[in-house]
Amino acid sequence: MSEVIYDVIVLGGGAGGVPASIRAAQLGGRVAIVESDRLGGLCMNKACVPFGHMMAASNILGSLSLGKEMGLGFPEVSKDFAALMKRQNELISFMKQGVKSQLNKKKVEILQGKGKITGKGKLEISGKPYAYKKLILASGAKWVKPEFPGSDTEGAITTDELLARDKLPKKILLYGNSPWLISIAQFLHRYGSAVTLAVQEKDLLAAESKVIRSRLAAALKNQGITIWTSAEMAGVKKEKDGLHCSIKVKDRQEALVVESILGLRRGAALEGLGLEHAGLNKAGDYIPVNQRMETGLDGIYAIGDVSSPESKHYSHQASSGGIVAAENAMGLKSTYDSRSLCRVLFTRPQVACVGLTSKEAKEAGYEVVEGAAPFSMNPLGMILTQTEGIVEVVADKKYGEVLGIHFIGEGASEMAGIGVLALQMEATLEDLARAPFPHPTLNESLSDAARECLGRSIFLP
Amino acid sequence: MSEVIYDVIVLGGGAGGVPASIRAAQLGGRVAIVESDRLGGLCMNKACVPFGHMMAASNILGSLSLGKEMGLGFPEVSKDFAALMKRQNELISFMKQGVKSQLNKKKVEILQGKGKITGKGKLEISGKPYAYKKLILASGAKWVKPEFPGSDTEGAITTDELLARDKLPKKILLYGNSPWLISIAQFLHRYGSAVTLAVQEKDLLAAESKVIRSRLAAALKNQGITIWTSAEMAGVKKEKDGLHCSIKVKDRQEALVVESILGLRRGAALEGLGLEHAGLNKAGDYIPVNQRMETGLDGIYAIGDVSSPESKHYSHQASSGGIVAAENAMGLKSTYDSRSLCRVLFTRPQVACVGLTSKEAKEAGYEVVEGAAPFSMNPLGMILTQTEGIVEVVADKKYGEVLGIHFIGEGASEMAGIGVLALQMEATLEDLARAPFPHPTLNESLSDAARECLGRSIFLP
Repeated sequence: MSEVIYDVIVLGGGAGGVPASIRAAQLGGRVAIVESDRLGGLCMNKACVPFGHMMAASNILGSLSLGKEMGLGFPEVSKDFAALMKRQNELISFMKQGVKSQLNKKKVEILQGKGKITGKGKLEISGKPYAYKKLILASGAKWVKPEFPGSDTEGAITTDELLARDKLPKKILLYGNSPWLISIAQFLHRYGSAVTLAVQEKDLLAAESKVIRSRLAAALKNQGITIWTSAEMAGVKKEKDGLHCSIKVKDRQEALVVESILGLRRGAALEGLGLEHAGLNKAGDYIPVNQRMETGLDGIYAIGDVSSPESKHYSHQASSGGIVAAENAMGLKSTYDSRSLCRVLFTRPQVACVGLTSKEAKEAGYEVVEGAAPFSMNPLGMILTQTEGIVEVVADKKYGEVLGIHFIGEGASEMAGIGVLALQMEATLEDLARAPFPHPTLNESLSDAARECLGRSIFLP
Repeated sequence: MSEVIYDVIVLGGGAGGVPASIRAAQLGGRVAIVESDRLGGLCMNKACVPFGHMMAASNILGSLSLGKEMGLGFPEVSKDFAALMKRQNELISFMKQGVKSQLNKKKVEILQGKGKITGKGKLEISGKPYAYKKLILASGAKWVKPEFPGSDTEGAITTDELLARDKLPKKILLYGNSPWLISIAQFLHRYGSAVTLAVQEKDLLAAESKVIRSRLAAALKNQGITIWTSAEMAGVKKEKDGLHCSIKVKDRQEALVVESILGLRRGAALEGLGLEHAGLNKAGDYIPVNQRMETGLDGIYAIGDVSSPESKHYSHQASSGGIVAAENAMGLKSTYDSRSLCRVLFTRPQVACVGLTSKEAKEAGYEVVEGAAPFSMNPLGMILTQTEGIVEVVADKKYGEVLGIHFIGEGASEMAGIGVLALQMEATLEDLARAPFPHPTLNESLSDAARECLGRSIFLP
């Protein structure tokens, strides 16, 4: 047994664990972070950063059509996927190095290996014992290959395999419910793959509002992506010309021959944490926590994906929760309110939704008032041909409290920051209605959507 | 004299007048809007919209270098300025039609002509008398050709002449202090003109923080634009090969031969309003107003550019003030707080600043705390090679109230919406520090800049 008793050990060096460990060290704790695989976690190595990078390239391609409308000509655009992957991998290496150097500077010890709880206040890392006062579980998520009839067939791949390629499949089926598939579909399509996106749910982003769902689906279809909803894989057969997929789509049967099938979902990385030694025997999909990130187990916190259902696997939830867990572990009183969690998709148009849909708000007992302002009526929206874009506001009728703000369109992910702050600060419709957002920007539409809720929109019919 | 007495007459159908008239009509008033020239005003016809459109095209060109880094190839990009202008003029016509139809739907009468106050409650439009209870002056601004030695020479043009061209000058000097010149410089440069930007002030955007100023200047210089500061035109001589300009730049003398000189500034459109008949005899540069948009003259309000110094000529100030003026004219009690006015520049990188610089905050007596987070340390910033980008936060040390937020970088104009709301809602550093902005976005850096102010940044060295 090591003689050191760490104030805080953080299990997992990803989007949640890194800020958690830094915050705990800032508060004067002796802190270690345990990472078995790669600093930066799933987000930096296998998800947000690589796909964010790929979507950035894809978005540049997507902007060319507006350029053409404006009299710019781009003959013979070439796309070098291998070069994109090379830049991407270099970037990730650079970022990982940055994380390491941040941890060093902020006096967080890095312990290499896989951590496993062995008893109260005790942990083993690759067989070596360590002691802690407080533990923050931040093991994150992993890509899980979904099971479906034929999921074992050669050619049914995961994103890890996709990211390791230097050439893209000519024809691909994306199958599952993960929102990640939507971004990947658009990227592959822009890079020349023929893409069919088959989701099991009734709609893309089934939990979002009808306006967001229908606009997103229409945009992707217009771009040339085939979308099947209410889809169920019946079977896959490998033949000479590719994978023959048989898929039930609503009440019809579809047949499709592709080079690859990409299926994916994310699952909490619970395995091997030794939770049973901490007294957590009931195995769920994730470790539930309260607003202080407490697991209910003495001195043990959990943050990010390992403590969330797949629908809340967002790095910003992990990092915010990580800071809260660290503060509580170090004796402060801190809470994280997931109401202002932004659900974001880096497609073109981007989708970014904060707070409740009107359906959710009604179910929660609110008397709901709604307003929406399409970007097609916004001056910058007209300049940018943002026919697909809109912002929706959902509010409580009685007090005017804003309950949800949903964007689809160019720059939605950055605009959503306004929504995040609005929900966090409990902004009212009056606040948004009177906000002098700069002109010409798309976020001017947010004011008019709020005014629409109040029955006094200025620029809407 | 017409028998009708309007509850509100709005003089000027631009960015301020249109929302003012609609709001007054919403509140039950009989309302007329007077426009002599073109609905939409300077903003829609000659400034924000046309230059916003041009900057949108310019920004697509600007994004290609990132695309190249990412393995995309764009051989032989062609730029058709005439096609851009054609789309632009069609767009403006479409928007103007939209404004007209909005005014009709919202029951605002449109009176064509130039309005002139003739006495208390009395107005003449192209000679015909009208009566009102309340008057809102919204005549806006006009481009003023600045006077300098040689400003009368043929080839010294205004933006109106630039917008009327279908070919761009090969070599151009932009001379003056207006921030508009900076955008225009970048546009012209991207479209192939050799551009020299000579400003009289010590720096581009002289009133902004040093960080913003220096990053903007460095970015433009890197792109290939020649910038001269502390510049004073000594003379212009037209010769066969072009306009020979002699310019004193700091303590040296520069000579430059160009095809055109573009000089511009904006001035409040005060002329011919008949202010003397309302009792306003002292001619200043603009009509001062209080937070209720009252001029001090009985029943007369003024909004937007006609009531602001050139540094505050922003359409969003006009529209926000317009709504406030309309509400007060119709008997409500409403105020506009210009603290959250965003100063925005649609260059690439964009600049968007809300609130005080640290210098201004210190002068106002605050004990100031500052923090900045460069986008080069932000994950999306790294993906997008945002080496020029940064966000700065200025706050009051004692209570943590946020006093200023300044962005430079991609999407700054949309991110600035967070700053607008933050200042309006009197957000504290803690609010920003804890805001779970979505990942990966640039606005995550805003949280870290706020945490830097609090001495606990997570991702900064």
